[in-house]
Amino acid sequence: MIILGIDPGIAIVGYGVIECKGNRFKALDYGAITTEANIPFTERIRIIYDDMTTLIDKYNPTDLAIEELFFNKNIKTAIKVGQARGVEILAAVHKGLNIYEYTPLQVKQGVVGYGRAEKRQVQEMVKMLLNLKEIPKPDDAADALALALCHGSSLKFKEMFRMK
Amino acid sequence: MIILGIDPGIAIVGYGVIECKGNRFKALDYGAITTEANIPFTERIRIIYDDMTTLIDKYNPTDLAIEELFFNKNIKTAIKVGQARGVEILAAVHKGLNIYEYTPLQVKQGVVGYGRAEKRQVQEMVKMLLNLKEIPKPDDAADALALALCHGSSLKFKEMFRMK
Repeated sequence: MIILGIDPGIAIVGYGVIECKGNRFKALDYGAITTEANIPFTERIRIIYDDMTTLIDKYNPTDLAIEELFFNKNIKTAIKVGQARGVEILAAVHKGLNIYEYTPLQVKQGVVGYGRAEKRQVQEMVKMLLNLKEIPKPDDAADALALALCHGSSLKFKEMFRMK
Repeated sequence: MIILGIDPGIAIVGYGVIECKGNRFKALDYGAITTEANIPFTERIRIIYDDMTTLIDKYNPTDLAIEELFFNKNIKTAIKVGQARGVEILAAVHKGLNIYEYTPLQVKQGVVGYGRAEKRQVQEMVKMLLNLKEIPKPDDAADALALALCHGSSLKFKEMFRMK
């Protein structure tokens, strides 16, 4: 099965596409959809929707794993990124993907096995689990891969319990 | 010209469609797109996108006037409504509308001529300008009509200045 992980954003939308085969995970693609701050907001969300659609058409994932938004300071940023995240989810809904949301805590627990893991530890784990030569760049892409891995692992666990 | 006004939301999206002919405004339709809190969020934004698209196809407006979001308390609500607003704007972008954003202050100034006008005064003005028998219900629909009227008036002013 193929999972698309998305680290939501407006200027940088991290993405990671992984394939799960039994106990193995393989990175098919990762990177970031970026939009310039100097173009109109309406154009930025159109680009994000279109690029998400292209990505989904290319890899045909069944599931989207996307991070829940947490902000405790800047409400303007929360609204801006919130609007972009709505569009990111809609693109996946339009393509019939199942949508799963994970908190940063769940991702750390799912990937490193420890909710208070450092960012660097998560990135190292992503590199190891996907057998990559280097830590994926930008950070948003590594986060997106971590989300996809977190979802993949949770499915594996669910399957194990079903097998009993 | 036809203007679609949108009062953004997730549970209730107020809409108002008006036609501007010279100095005259006419209400073509108004009401609210509603989504139940007990259905998945992904389904709610899909419904909102689809209903927005249906509305645009029916009345073929050239411009969208949508309220800017302001929140100073609940950041969770800000993120939720923000996500829905992103989808509301995207539906209009996909249909080629020009998008205009107005603050509540601008709407009050544009419709009543006074930035500190009460909600009730705005609603009475909407009723009068559109020659309606009653104040439109729900409030979200009245707000959406006010947004459309605010945009219509601002265009009228722009035209007057161009004429000089």
